[in-house]
Amino acid sequence: MRVLIALGGNAMTGPGGDASTESQQKAISLACEPLADLIVDGHDIVLTHGNGPQVGNLLVKNEMAASEVPPVPLDWCVAQTQATIGFTIQNALSAALLSRGVHRGIAALVTRTVVDIDDPAFRRPTKPIGRYLPRERAQQLIDHGQHWQDRGERGWRRVVASPTPIEVLDVATMSALVTSGHVVIAAGGGGIPVARAADGTLRGVEAVIDKDLTATVLARSLAVDVLLIATDVSHVMVDFGTPQARALEQISARELREHAHAGQFGSGSMGPKVEAILGFVNGGGQRAVITSLDRIADGVSGVYGTVVESARA
Amino acid sequence: MRVLIALGGNAMTGPGGDASTESQQKAISLACEPLADLIVDGHDIVLTHGNGPQVGNLLVKNEMAASEVPPVPLDWCVAQTQATIGFTIQNALSAALLSRGVHRGIAALVTRTVVDIDDPAFRRPTKPIGRYLPRERAQQLIDHGQHWQDRGERGWRRVVASPTPIEVLDVATMSALVTSGHVVIAAGGGGIPVARAADGTLRGVEAVIDKDLTATVLARSLAVDVLLIATDVSHVMVDFGTPQARALEQISARELREHAHAGQFGSGSMGPKVEAILGFVNGGGQRAVITSLDRIADGVSGVYGTVVESARA
Repeated sequence: MRVLIALGGNAMTGPGGDASTESQQKAISLACEPLADLIVDGHDIVLTHGNGPQVGNLLVKNEMAASEVPPVPLDWCVAQTQATIGFTIQNALSAALLSRGVHRGIAALVTRTVVDIDDPAFRRPTKPIGRYLPRERAQQLIDHGQHWQDRGERGWRRVVASPTPIEVLDVATMSALVTSGHVVIAAGGGGIPVARAADGTLRGVEAVIDKDLTATVLARSLAVDVLLIATDVSHVMVDFGTPQARALEQISARELREHAHAGQFGSGSMGPKVEAILGFVNGGGQRAVITSLDRIADGVSGVYGTVVESARA
Repeated sequence: MRVLIALGGNAMTGPGGDASTESQQKAISLACEPLADLIVDGHDIVLTHGNGPQVGNLLVKNEMAASEVPPVPLDWCVAQTQATIGFTIQNALSAALLSRGVHRGIAALVTRTVVDIDDPAFRRPTKPIGRYLPRERAQQLIDHGQHWQDRGERGWRRVVASPTPIEVLDVATMSALVTSGHVVIAAGGGGIPVARAADGTLRGVEAVIDKDLTATVLARSLAVDVLLIATDVSHVMVDFGTPQARALEQISARELREHAHAGQFGSGSMGPKVEAILGFVNGGGQRAVITSLDRIADGVSGVYGTVVESARA
C-alpha cells in the first residue's frame, strides 16, 4: 500500500520539545525503527513531519543576532528545518534499513505549499511560536511589525499566521519517486508557505502551515491508501481527564465529526489531527489513522489506533 | 545535452557577499534568466551552488544566540542553506520559465556528500569561514574546541576542515529526475558532509566541502556532457594584474595544468575552479567551462569562456 506518515514533534525532539542536535538525532533514530519495519513489510512510504520547536529555535537566533545578521523570514526558517530534519531522517532511516539488510533510495525534497494571500489568517495571526519574552521586549518587536500576545504568567509570545494549505507543489515528482522505489520525505513543517501572484509567479510568505492539514492535502493529491498521523498517544480520547474518558478505536467519520463539534479536541493539539483524518476520508481517502509511533504497522493495517475508513472500504 | 551548472556566490548574494533575504532573492532572480534560456534551448540541467556568505551568517547566529539555543554543527548549517537557496531558485526559475511560456518540474534535493573521516583536512583545518572577531573573543571559541587564525588587521577568523568530496549520494535519484524532464537542484554548498562508519552507517561531520570539487564528482557520476562553472568573470586569466595579463579561451587540459602548477591561480578563488574542470575532463568528461553567468549559453556550446575539452571530443 501507498502510505503517508505524518511524524509529530515527539518523533523529532527530546522531552519538552528539546530541539538540540543530539536530541533530534536520538528521537529520529528511534522513530526510524518502526518506519523501517513498515518499509520492509513492502509498503511505499512518503514521510512528512512537524517542526515547531526547531522553528522556535531559529526565531530566537534571528532575534538575538539581528544586530549583526539580517533576520530571515518565517518561510526561510521552515525551509531550513526541512533540510536539517530531512538529512537526519535520511541518515537514520538508511541505517535502520541497513540493519535489516535492505537498501532503499531516500529522497528529501525541499517542498513548497501554496496558500491564499487573502486567507483571513494573515489578517488575524493566531499560531503561537517561539519563546516567551517579557512585555517590554515584546513591545519592541510589535513596534517592528510583529504580532505578540500576552500569554499570562510565562510572558508574551509571538503569534503568526497559519493559513489553510491549498496545494502542495511537486506532487508529480514525489509520485514518480515513490513509484520508482524511493522513500520520499516531503512538505516538512507543513511546507514552505508560498503565495501565487496574479501573473502565476510564486513567492514565500511569512506564515507557518499546520503540518497535519498539509498532510491531508498531500495524501489526497498523492492518492495514498492510508494517511497515518503518528503522535505520542495511542488513540484519540473523548471526555479526556474525566472518569468517562475513553479511547476511540474504529469510528465512522460522522461520529468523529460529532465529537469534534462537541468540542472534544484541543484546537492546538488533537483538533488539527482529527480535522486532517476527517478531511482525507471525506475527500475520498480509504483509511486514516491516528496512533503512536511505535504502533504504526498495526495502525496502517487498521487494527490499532483511532481508525476512520471510508464507507466504500 | 545534459549539463551541470555550478553557480558561484555572485549568483546568490549581493555586492560584497551580502546575504540578506532580499539580496539573495534579487541575485537569484537575475541568475535564473540565462538559466531559463538554456532550458528553453532544450538542455537538461542540474544546478549546484555555493553558500559561503550564507553559512557565515548562520555561524554568527549560532554564536550570538548560544546562551539561549544550542548551536547546530556545520553540516546542519550547510543543510539549511540548501533549502533556503533551493526554494528561492525554484520560485525564481519557475517564474523565468513561465515568462517564456515553459513549465518544467524543478526538484530541490537535500543532498549529502561523503567524505573520509581520515582526510588530513580534519587534522589541519584551513578553510576560513564566518566573520572576523577580536583576539579575546576568538580565544574563548578556541577554548571551546574551534580553530581560529590571526588574519591580520581585520582580526581573527574561524578556519574549518574542507575535506575532499568522495561521493555525492542519491545520484541515481537525480539522474531519474533529469531523465523524466526535471531541472534538479542538488549538492548545494558542496553537499552536507557525512562520513561512513565501518558498519556502513552515515553521520554528519563538521566540515564544509568546496562546491566546485563536489561539482566535478557530481558531473562525473551523472555523466553530464558539460560541466560549467558560472562565476563573475568571463575567463580564467593568467599573469593577472600584470601588463601580460591574458584570458584563457580554448585550452588543452595539459596546458591549463601547467598554468596551475606555475601558481597562476589563487588557492581560495580560481584554483579550485580550475582543479574542478581539469578533474572532469581528465576523468573522461567531454567539455568543461568556466565563464560568467550571463554567457552560460555560449559557454555550454564551447564558443565562449575558458573551455577545456577531452582529446576525444
